[in-house]
Amino acid sequence: MKKTSVTLAACAALLTFAVSTTSMAQNQGGKQTPESTEIYEPVPPVVTPGVVTANTSGTTPPSDATVLFDGKNTDQWVAITGYDPASWEKTNAGPLKWPVRDGVMYSTKGFSARSKQEFNDFQLHIEFKTPEKVEGKGQGRGNSGVFLQGRYELQVLDNYENPTYVDGMVGSIYKQAIPLANPSRKPGEWQSYDVIYQAPRFNKAGLMTDYAYVTVLLNGVLVQNHAAIRGTTEYIGYPKVQPHGAGPILLQDHGNPVGFRNIWVRPL
Amino acid sequence: MKKTSVTLAACAALLTFAVSTTSMAQNQGGKQTPESTEIYEPVPPVVTPGVVTANTSGTTPPSDATVLFDGKNTDQWVAITGYDPASWEKTNAGPLKWPVRDGVMYSTKGFSARSKQEFNDFQLHIEFKTPEKVEGKGQGRGNSGVFLQGRYELQVLDNYENPTYVDGMVGSIYKQAIPLANPSRKPGEWQSYDVIYQAPRFNKAGLMTDYAYVTVLLNGVLVQNHAAIRGTTEYIGYPKVQPHGAGPILLQDHGNPVGFRNIWVRPL
Amino acid sequence: MKKTSVTLAACAALLTFAVSTTSMAQNQGGKQTPESTEIYEPVPPVVTPGVVTANTSGTTPPSDATVLFDGKNTDQWVAITGYDPASWEKTNAGPLKWPVRDGVMYSTKGFSARSKQEFNDFQLHIEFKTPEKVEGKGQGRGNSGVFLQGRYELQVLDNYENPTYVDGMVGSIYKQAIPLANPSRKPGEWQSYDVIYQAPRFNKAGLMTDYAYVTVLLNGVLVQNHAAIRGTTEYIGYPKVQPHGAGPILLQDHGNPVGFRNIWVRPL
Amino acid sequence: MKKTSVTLAACAALLTFAVSTTSMAQNQGGKQTPESTEIYEPVPPVVTPGVVTANTSGTTPPSDATVLFDGKNTDQWVAITGYDPASWEKTNAGPLKWPVRDGVMYSTKGFSARSKQEFNDFQLHIEFKTPEKVEGKGQGRGNSGVFLQGRYELQVLDNYENPTYVDGMVGSIYKQAIPLANPSRKPGEWQSYDVIYQAPRFNKAGLMTDYAYVTVLLNGVLVQNHAAIRGTTEYIGYPKVQPHGAGPILLQDHGNPVGFRNIWVRPL
Repeated sequence: MKKTSVTLAACAALLTFAVSTTSMAQNQGGKQTPESTEIYEPVPPVVTPGVVTANTSGTTPPSDATVLFDGKNTDQWVAITGYDPASWEKTNAGPLKWPVRDGVMYSTKGFSARSKQEFNDFQLHIEFKTPEKVEGKGQGRGNSGVFLQGRYELQVLDNYENPTYVDGMVGSIYKQAIPLANPSRKPGEWQSYDVIYQAPRFNKAGLMTDYAYVTVLLNGVLVQNHAAIRGTTEYIGYPKVQPHGAGPILLQDHGNPVGFRNIWVRPL
Repeated sequence: MKKTSVTLAACAALLTFAVSTTSMAQNQGGKQTPESTEIYEPVPPVVTPGVVTANTSGTTPPSDATVLFDGKNTDQWVAITGYDPASWEKTNAGPLKWPVRDGVMYSTKGFSARSKQEFNDFQLHIEFKTPEKVEGKGQGRGNSGVFLQGRYELQVLDNYENPTYVDGMVGSIYKQAIPLANPSRKPGEWQSYDVIYQAPRFNKAGLMTDYAYVTVLLNGVLVQNHAAIRGTTEYIGYPKVQPHGAGPILLQDHGNPVGFRNIWVRPL
Repeated sequence: MKKTSVTLAACAALLTFAVSTTSMAQNQGGKQTPESTEIYEPVPPVVTPGVVTANTSGTTPPSDATVLFDGKNTDQWVAITGYDPASWEKTNAGPLKWPVRDGVMYSTKGFSARSKQEFNDFQLHIEFKTPEKVEGKGQGRGNSGVFLQGRYELQVLDNYENPTYVDGMVGSIYKQAIPLANPSRKPGEWQSYDVIYQAPRFNKAGLMTDYAYVTVLLNGVLVQNHAAIRGTTEYIGYPKVQPHGAGPILLQDHGNPVGFRNIWVRPL
Repeated sequence: MKKTSVTLAACAALLTFAVSTTSMAQNQGGKQTPESTEIYEPVPPVVTPGVVTANTSGTTPPSDATVLFDGKNTDQWVAITGYDPASWEKTNAGPLKWPVRDGVMYSTKGFSARSKQEFNDFQLHIEFKTPEKVEGKGQGRGNSGVFLQGRYELQVLDNYENPTYVDGMVGSIYKQAIPLANPSRKPGEWQSYDVIYQAPRFNKAGLMTDYAYVTVLLNGVLVQNHAAIRGTTEYIGYPKVQPHGAGPILLQDHGNPVGFRNIWVRPL
């Protein structure tokens, strides 16, 4: 109704006038208060943090975490036979038969592990130990990997007094980001990864419009700080840009029996 | 009209009530003011922007810009014989003898151009045209490059109906960042780059603690948006991490006579 | 010349030796190739860039742009009576009756403009001129604004020899980000904004997990470089975090008749 | 000498020719190798990580850390009487007389603590406990703070079942960044902060050209992910942009006796 719209317009005009008048008044005699810069929502959710125990390097799962391995079984995982999405996405995967002993699951030749659940942005905690008995050298010693969203490998390797190319070290985003330090523990000792991961963005043309970003602490020491991941992990050649949605956590079998425990993910 | 004035009064009252209620909810008696969120320094410097002329694609230099080429001579440049810092940093370079014709300087076989001045963070404007007479294909057509801080190549190439690998296209950070679009003009037409560059950070161990970041408009179309540069441009193999301070602008000679004009830099 | 040919041979030999030595040092027998770091997809879309004309400050729309105003009519817009989402999202808005004269549309007291189309990440070009006849001062002179996704205001103001609080200047993200420079043109002269915008991310709890980021050129001069926007534009008090999806472009009426032309958006 | 320059140019030309020939050959029959994407330097420094003990929440200091408090004395600190740089930079500070009991130092009314050493980018670990006996509410309960580079406050507060404005919660960058979660432990229980901090950048005009960025884990739970800090912490009004170099760690006294232990910093 026309009458109404006139009234609304007048109201808006008055409001504008009132505000500008107030503004002038306050500019001359206004009193600043602490409350102007307080905000009350959204309220961050309450989370009960985990605790450190004799069987953890880092904390047990916080209350809002998805537990991928609690020491009992591999029910949260399926077996896959390759690491690149072209293979694992098509794999008709069966149960993961990695052995579980004393609360630890061990990678086993021939099969990698893919989490049943898929994730976008997340915080991940995972603990690993490379074989106490040292065999091989360089990339051949205690090699495994944690694939973020099934595509981007955070390298696992026994790098204790065992040099290799720096973009393939433990703590590296394999062939993409050199770690800032080498805080490796000795073979056979438990080590921990704390990972903060933000998924990449893609546009309709299939181009990456923002990187995946990752921050990583290895044994409590910063090794990646908001590192940009520009494409899939490739052994030969360059990272590939492949649009995708949510993705799983993969644990790589690379022929060395690496133990894992206390694996949890907090979707962000 | 009476109806209106009643409505206005109601409107004002409602407004007053709404504001004071909200305010009370958040603090006991405090009065919020617009001034709490005003700040008065530091004051951004006044810059007289450039203007568009018949001889520019983009504007003439803003008042605070360092002009690297104004159409007259190559005095701001020296000649170098290689593109990687290992060579150009040691080169006892002489005057750049690229020919200047009609306000344009042309790359000439055998010598690249290095700016005498060096820069950290900057905004760069540069215009180029690839040869009107099309010869060669792929990387062999209208190839040149703008090296940021003398190390990171923003590719120049005639990509008009001339495909090549996408991380080597015009608008790419060579072998590091695919452009978001291909807004190439035809061979022989003037094209423009507007570049916003932030230098990388290195720590005492020589590791890169933050990337170089670059945003690029090619002919006014976004081709790079805060792209992360992780190391030096390499033809073979991976980017190298080499700590450095301020660096020059390099214009590459790649055997094709590419013309340049209206080159200016604003240190940020 | 014999001397030269000897030198060339030596040069080639040295080159061969250098390459093979390096290669051997890094691997046993492997041969590095340039192709390892070439990638061929995804292929960036071809875009025909715009051109500069007598009636533009910047280019006409590139071929993939959504044109919001081409000088003829305001069909791409509706009228709204407030600037905050709480009001404009509910407004049963009618046609925008801003006058169009000589290819320019002018903001008119009482009504702001909201684009019918909504956007996520985008590149925006817009040209504006504040009144040639100078009236008022500070925030009262040539005030308008471009609201990105309807929530985050890129300030429009006549700041030519007209100081105000620096987080409210032209080129600022109003009360959130101070511009890096003040490249204002004189009142009545056409000015241009080139804006690169990345939408924020929110999680299920309604918290912002990544900022909106914006890069802005004003008259070709950088005023915002990947600035982080942490919440809605507020006149009084702090930015608010309000989860949202795609959003429109809003042009604010602030009581001063500001002219606009050549408005286009490229979804990224 | 002219002869020499001819030889060099010829050599460069030959190289160009050789490379392009090779390139063509390899494009047709080239064999890609894993080694192309291996890099060997810079080598990340070896760090011996800390260990978890009965008296730590998190690890003891890694081998490359600067220890600010090891439970014995406050020698690494001086006393200051205010929190804003304008006051603490001028304070003729004496020894910090916060009491140390059972390996814990307690904030004491009237004096805050400033580290003698100053830092740029760093990783910080610090543990704190708010009083077991609950007194006060909101900001009045267990309030302290960790000022990064002496200017940017990471809030310390007893937020266990104690709501307050969300940009003032534990885990917030005070009045700048809301935490992503509230993983508070009970009053009297030890809590831990793991902080990754990147210093801001300023240009010659005194403007901030890049934010400070901070990532924070509270009790092992992510509360800040690469949050942008845009200026100094202010109780009233907006963050201020104040250029600075290296800065200290400050621990705030806010009238509540908060205990601290196991404080270490790794310059990055």
